[in-house]
Amino acid sequence: MSERSSIGPAGLAALVATGAIGGLIGDMGHVQSGTTVYLEDPLPYIWESQLWFPLMVGGGTAALGWIAVELGASAAEAERSEPLREAAAAIASVLGLYALTAIVRGEPAAVGIVLCYSVAALICARFARDRVDWLCALLAALFGVGSEVLLSAAGVFEYAGDVEQILGVAAWLPALYLAYGVVASRLGVLVALSRGPR
Amino acid sequence: MSERSSIGPAGLAALVATGAIGGLIGDMGHVQSGTTVYLEDPLPYIWESQLWFPLMVGGGTAALGWIAVELGASAAEAERSEPLREAAAAIASVLGLYALTAIVRGEPAAVGIVLCYSVAALICARFARDRVDWLCALLAALFGVGSEVLLSAAGVFEYAGDVEQILGVAAWLPALYLAYGVVASRLGVLVALSRGPR
Amino acid sequence: MSERSSIGPAGLAALVATGAIGGLIGDMGHVQSGTTVYLEDPLPYIWESQLWFPLMVGGGTAALGWIAVELGASAAEAERSEPLREAAAAIASVLGLYALTAIVRGEPAAVGIVLCYSVAALICARFARDRVDWLCALLAALFGVGSEVLLSAAGVFEYAGDVEQILGVAAWLPALYLAYGVVASRLGVLVALSRGPR
Repeated sequence: MSERSSIGPAGLAALVATGAIGGLIGDMGHVQSGTTVYLEDPLPYIWESQLWFPLMVGGGTAALGWIAVELGASAAEAERSEPLREAAAAIASVLGLYALTAIVRGEPAAVGIVLCYSVAALICARFARDRVDWLCALLAALFGVGSEVLLSAAGVFEYAGDVEQILGVAAWLPALYLAYGVVASRLGVLVALSRGPR
Repeated sequence: MSERSSIGPAGLAALVATGAIGGLIGDMGHVQSGTTVYLEDPLPYIWESQLWFPLMVGGGTAALGWIAVELGASAAEAERSEPLREAAAAIASVLGLYALTAIVRGEPAAVGIVLCYSVAALICARFARDRVDWLCALLAALFGVGSEVLLSAAGVFEYAGDVEQILGVAAWLPALYLAYGVVASRLGVLVALSRGPR
Repeated sequence: MSERSSIGPAGLAALVATGAIGGLIGDMGHVQSGTTVYLEDPLPYIWESQLWFPLMVGGGTAALGWIAVELGASAAEAERSEPLREAAAAIASVLGLYALTAIVRGEPAAVGIVLCYSVAALICARFARDRVDWLCALLAALFGVGSEVLLSAAGVFEYAGDVEQILGVAAWLPALYLAYGVVASRLGVLVALSRGPR
């Protein structure tokens, strides 16, 4: 009898939905604050976002969660006893950081960058429990920031000129993706937990 | 010998004082930031607040704490071993959120709302330990937001026109009252704890 | 065989480096936001800071860490099992508060002060584990704020005129030093831990 757990179709759907809705909520703040602007809109808008954005975040969340569980990330005691509380805190942390990255527009670059990386470090330190979580943080940063660099270079969207940038994306962007990667990994574990061992 | 605890007169007085002082500190930020304006001042001002405001918050805090204890909310291990630390963290969390609701004035509505609800969710996830805490959160939101809706409609005070509103009160207001309700509930438990079982 | 631990030369150097780099990162935000201005620059600048500033913070961090360990502050279970996580969270907390003190410039005084003291209280409640930590918080506030009062009076630097001040320094400054003192104390414990008992 294996102790290994897995994520079923319903779990993957829950991760896609969580990521997509979270992405829409966060992106709304970026658009409303003028932090980012969509330059091309071939697809319909959902709230303030082009359709591809929530699909990308939703798909990424499911992929990271699936990778975490397949690589053997396991639930900690607090996650077993209070999975909903852990999931809510993890999601709220990343949404709060997402809003923070929008609120620092107009502040001196150094202040916003230090604040966002500090909060991201606190989120990672609070939720990461496993080497796999850190791998997911790196994967999220690599693919997330990489995708935005490419899409920005292709003229699909842009960051406001007064936002401190590296390769066309905000300097605080890696912090947001690192925290997101850790949380997506743990959400995968929590979703697998709800299904029990396979 | 019953294990049930209760709040004595001194405990109720402490809850009233904590709520009243916390309300004055928080309201000072709302008034100074122009988030809210008193339109009628039949009573004397305490700092920046009309006298009825600290009385309302103080009375509400004592009422919620009393309800929590009467309904059997019990202390967790961390609260028994370090009650002062838990109380200080709970109070500081709500005061910080209160200040945050003032600081987001002038930011895009979505950003401020997401940030305030995210922090409120983190406070609830950190401090709520019992179903009774969630009941107190709902009671605080119902009566707190309800009172403000009525007082705003009656022209006693108003939120600034640039603050996103629902029924005349700020859209982030339920978040503040939910977090406050959970904390008032736990402060009741901590005050009862200091008295021992009845 | 004594259980007492101590900090060796490498540990002191690590504390000096951590404090110096943290001071440079935080001060960068204060200078870029115009919160503080150096009025005299007899020494070279490192990033945005006069050379004496990182030396003062680095030396203070090592001194506080050394005092904490000599006075017998001991490691808690979480610090023994995950020292890097605890150190990272502690450092990120203070850097985040440092950036927050820069970001509140331009906000109403009461709002910024309440937010900074609330976050400082949360940092102290999270990381302080020992009476010695509180002693270090007081020492940091006394010597840190005292030094800044003297240097401000001597015309070496000044806080912006729109920053609420007490004796020539920001009203939120004690909050920053109190949190810093607790964290410097715990970093001393963590550094001593890495060396084992003497």
